[in-house]
Amino acid sequence: MTTQQLTEQIKKKKSFLCIGLDVDLNKIPKHLLKDEDPIFAFNKAIIDATHNLCVAYKPNTAFYEAYGLKGWKALEKTISYLNKNHPEIFTIADAKRGDIGNTSTMYAKAFFEDLAFDSVTVAPYMGKDSVEPFLAFKNKHTIMLALTSNQGAFDFQTKTVDGKELYKQVLETSKSWVNSKNLMYVVGATKAEYFADIRQIIPDSFLLVPGVGAQGGNLQDVCKYGMSSNVGLLINSSRGIIYASNEIDFAQAAALKASELQKQMEVILE
Amino acid sequence: MTTQQLTEQIKKKKSFLCIGLDVDLNKIPKHLLKDEDPIFAFNKAIIDATHNLCVAYKPNTAFYEAYGLKGWKALEKTISYLNKNHPEIFTIADAKRGDIGNTSTMYAKAFFEDLAFDSVTVAPYMGKDSVEPFLAFKNKHTIMLALTSNQGAFDFQTKTVDGKELYKQVLETSKSWVNSKNLMYVVGATKAEYFADIRQIIPDSFLLVPGVGAQGGNLQDVCKYGMSSNVGLLINSSRGIIYASNEIDFAQAAALKASELQKQMEVILE
Repeated sequence: MTTQQLTEQIKKKKSFLCIGLDVDLNKIPKHLLKDEDPIFAFNKAIIDATHNLCVAYKPNTAFYEAYGLKGWKALEKTISYLNKNHPEIFTIADAKRGDIGNTSTMYAKAFFEDLAFDSVTVAPYMGKDSVEPFLAFKNKHTIMLALTSNQGAFDFQTKTVDGKELYKQVLETSKSWVNSKNLMYVVGATKAEYFADIRQIIPDSFLLVPGVGAQGGNLQDVCKYGMSSNVGLLINSSRGIIYASNEIDFAQAAALKASELQKQMEVILE
Repeated sequence: MTTQQLTEQIKKKKSFLCIGLDVDLNKIPKHLLKDEDPIFAFNKAIIDATHNLCVAYKPNTAFYEAYGLKGWKALEKTISYLNKNHPEIFTIADAKRGDIGNTSTMYAKAFFEDLAFDSVTVAPYMGKDSVEPFLAFKNKHTIMLALTSNQGAFDFQTKTVDGKELYKQVLETSKSWVNSKNLMYVVGATKAEYFADIRQIIPDSFLLVPGVGAQGGNLQDVCKYGMSSNVGLLINSSRGIIYASNEIDFAQAAALKASELQKQMEVILE
């Protein structure tokens, strides 16, 4: 999927919502645990109930790896289900990978080829040659951590490096990498006041914005400072939507929460 | 396994060699491709031929994820085989993970509980609350990237942050984290001249050192500047050992290469 197609979907659905599929077997409705594949059963119900309200889904790989083979199988089934039934939806493997060149190429193959995600999140610490192997894939997107939503972001990301905060150095430096047009960035909603500065460096890039909902970020503030001419935002909510209820009505409850966010987005897009 | 037990193994085997199990189906001997599980067949043969010469094995998860379910299954079989037959060997999941707290906990469960590795590599960019969930596991080790072996290390890691290189800030800062005694660090062999400075900050911590072999690092230089009173080094070689031959004799050829490194280590340990 191209970024242009993504923007078209946003305008069509009047939504720039991304739903995080972080499935924890301790949090999903008890009745699903009898299912042969509770993780996929949960995801399928959430997707069926919310796909008109969002433009992207983001399974976080940690929640699948924690269940070993069964988890990886559920991840495969989830992405296959999305690609088959909702090919217009942008898919994000939230994996935060990054390694030396030949290893990053293997990760890129895992997520772009084997699983056929549209995008994957990566960490910048190892620099250019750890990210460029991902960028080499045509019409695939590499979403690099810039300024994350957690408290630990202040440990290194906001420290001053050669007169500029590290996350700004990361943004600046990455613009010179080969195929940098395939880059998007993670910027946490809990740090809305930083978006204006960030847009000075990367005016048009898409930003994946976690932290609305459970982590306390504010949608209006993020949009005020972070929206670009092509919208350029994917606002993620995971727990706030998928765990809205853990009863039999969980999917409808999730749709209701997603719908609340979509309606706020519709107003902002107008 | 405790670090004390690891040091005892090093002294017993006269080796601080770690062998990287980065299995690429395009590089392994052709005859193995007929096996039901070529990746595990390859690993098993390498382990059987080299386990007396090394103290650690390090599968890099990228090489397993790239083959989807089959790859993950081969990873499970490899770690089970090691834990069952060679419980004295230190196992490293080279995964370079790191995410917000509740997600890092899921990664820690994946590698420490589900797969039962002794250790996992993590990236520092997201700071304290992304690493501490790993550190909470007793007798498990979290190996954090400090100064990596690739060229991209110079993009951010060696940049000056508040008067000190970023990788030094990472080392310093991490010492204050809860359960920091469970930390080890990745420092590339290609940057041997940095080890003296690093030992000023973390005199006793174990360092996982990639970059000897295919990447050009020098064993003697690393040991000269990096060895601590408890040895404190795990020198990794992956491609240089496991792909020494891609013929029927591949395991013996790997053992020969491992033996060359072990003999150099024996001299250094004396």
